[in-house]
Amino acid sequence: MAITVVGSVAYDSVETPAGKYDRRLAGAATYFALAASYFTDVRVIAVVGDDFGPEQEAVFKAHGIDTRGIERAAGKTFFWQGSYLDNLNEARTHRTDLNVFAGFEPKIPDAYRDSDFLFLANIDPVLQRRVREAMPDVRLVAGDTMNYWIKDHRAALLELLKGLDILLINDTETRMLAGTNNPVKAARAVLAMGPKTLVVKHGEYGATAFFAQDAANASQRSTIRAFRAPALPLDEVVDPTGAGDSFAGGFFGYLASSAAAGGIRPAAFRHAMFYGGVMGSFAVERFGTERLQGLSREEIDERFLLFRELTHLE
Amino acid sequence: MAITVVGSVAYDSVETPAGKYDRRLAGAATYFALAASYFTDVRVIAVVGDDFGPEQEAVFKAHGIDTRGIERAAGKTFFWQGSYLDNLNEARTHRTDLNVFAGFEPKIPDAYRDSDFLFLANIDPVLQRRVREAMPDVRLVAGDTMNYWIKDHRAALLELLKGLDILLINDTETRMLAGTNNPVKAARAVLAMGPKTLVVKHGEYGATAFFAQDAANASQRSTIRAFRAPALPLDEVVDPTGAGDSFAGGFFGYLASSAAAGGIRPAAFRHAMFYGGVMGSFAVERFGTERLQGLSREEIDERFLLFRELTHLE
Repeated sequence: MAITVVGSVAYDSVETPAGKYDRRLAGAATYFALAASYFTDVRVIAVVGDDFGPEQEAVFKAHGIDTRGIERAAGKTFFWQGSYLDNLNEARTHRTDLNVFAGFEPKIPDAYRDSDFLFLANIDPVLQRRVREAMPDVRLVAGDTMNYWIKDHRAALLELLKGLDILLINDTETRMLAGTNNPVKAARAVLAMGPKTLVVKHGEYGATAFFAQDAANASQRSTIRAFRAPALPLDEVVDPTGAGDSFAGGFFGYLASSAAAGGIRPAAFRHAMFYGGVMGSFAVERFGTERLQGLSREEIDERFLLFRELTHLE
Repeated sequence: MAITVVGSVAYDSVETPAGKYDRRLAGAATYFALAASYFTDVRVIAVVGDDFGPEQEAVFKAHGIDTRGIERAAGKTFFWQGSYLDNLNEARTHRTDLNVFAGFEPKIPDAYRDSDFLFLANIDPVLQRRVREAMPDVRLVAGDTMNYWIKDHRAALLELLKGLDILLINDTETRMLAGTNNPVKAARAVLAMGPKTLVVKHGEYGATAFFAQDAANASQRSTIRAFRAPALPLDEVVDPTGAGDSFAGGFFGYLASSAAAGGIRPAAFRHAMFYGGVMGSFAVERFGTERLQGLSREEIDERFLLFRELTHLE
């Protein structure tokens, strides 16, 4: 089933302990789309400037990604500069130029309207909600957000959360959104805001999915329903940029590829969590989107087996 | 198969966000022995003062733990006072009175000499090594240590590590011991110091076992052999004290209970990692050793199933 993703297509300049690069194609929608493209059809909604040319377009095309929703505006593409010199787990932002992104008004091509899955990457929750409402027929909607929206645009974010099936955020964002440090209490608080499922990304420790309980169970003080997928211990993290978006792409891409007419089987959901970790682990092995551009499905499934072996009991 | 454990039996005064308590029976050997006692016979080597009476003795006896190696010395029992008010993941030490522990000379009762497994809880590595050498016939030796010994008694610790089958330490200790932040590089460095297996405890994220490679594989730059067990997302952590020692007790206790004449099967090792997490999750649910004192094997196996469900793919 096809996924439409809305989010940023950007240029990044990044420095990590392993080296640096200047103005490479990046952005949440790019990482997500590349990761998901190994599993299913992906369609992108974004805006770029006149510095986005055939070479960048070709990166998407090579993966069969539909770019008709990437609008060309006069000006420059969104630019981000950051580093991970002190701490591989947290980016330091040195510069953010919104450029054409400042006036982004997502437009949905007619050809995208039969998409079954919708992913709202980290952008203004007002825009996320607008896209969500413009695509009322999608079967499953997942989204991401970040500290900035949680802190300063809470009302708009809470409106968005009511319409989400799955929210994917990290530990810090979960604590900030819920206002509590305990992971179970925080998950309950976030699920009460609307999402049916909360996927919390733990970086090098993997990710945990928490599921909303039906009303009958919710009244008991019982263990929350959860599923935890590992991350692979890696020899070297070359560039953490895009790890979370690649996780989301692998997760949602696999979910879309395995969804049956009747819905999503629990086993498929669990596999999707593992594939999220798999794509995140590839993303950080090289600079920018380099590794995600050159994968094969065989490599991906080989790594899935490594993940399985890493936690399989018997 | 029987386990002998050497380590501290102590009194703790602890404050956490959930409350506080004063001078309760604690210490690494106590947590370890209680947790392991649900799986196998446990024998303790420690020293206590004249403030250790029949009431404290009864806690061990109720679990069939052999206390003949707990020496009574003139003076007071080791005392520790700490708090977790800012951060549940890291204790703040307010006071440490070594008392009778300052002159601890471990003595091994003859009745302990047929023990198959030996656990060296966190004490001076010189003492750990002395006990290890006094019990040359044990089949499997595991040990713990802490930042203090890593930093200021490195030479003695390195001598100890050469004789260990399994080292159990946390993330911070692993990084400190290895001198690198990358978890795989750190594991390789620690395994090169002697232990055949390194178990790294991640607190709320579970634990990862890293296995030494045979020489043929070690020369390849390949993924390290590892196994990752989850921790259970908990509603409330009442008191983190002893979580690591309880993990070690559950892990080593299960390992001893399931070891066959031919050695340890990989599946048994994996289950042991899960049982470590199970006992750690119980320990933190109430103050001190309270929860570990009142468990049943049925409760333990029920929780094991929760852990299994939490990560089981199919």
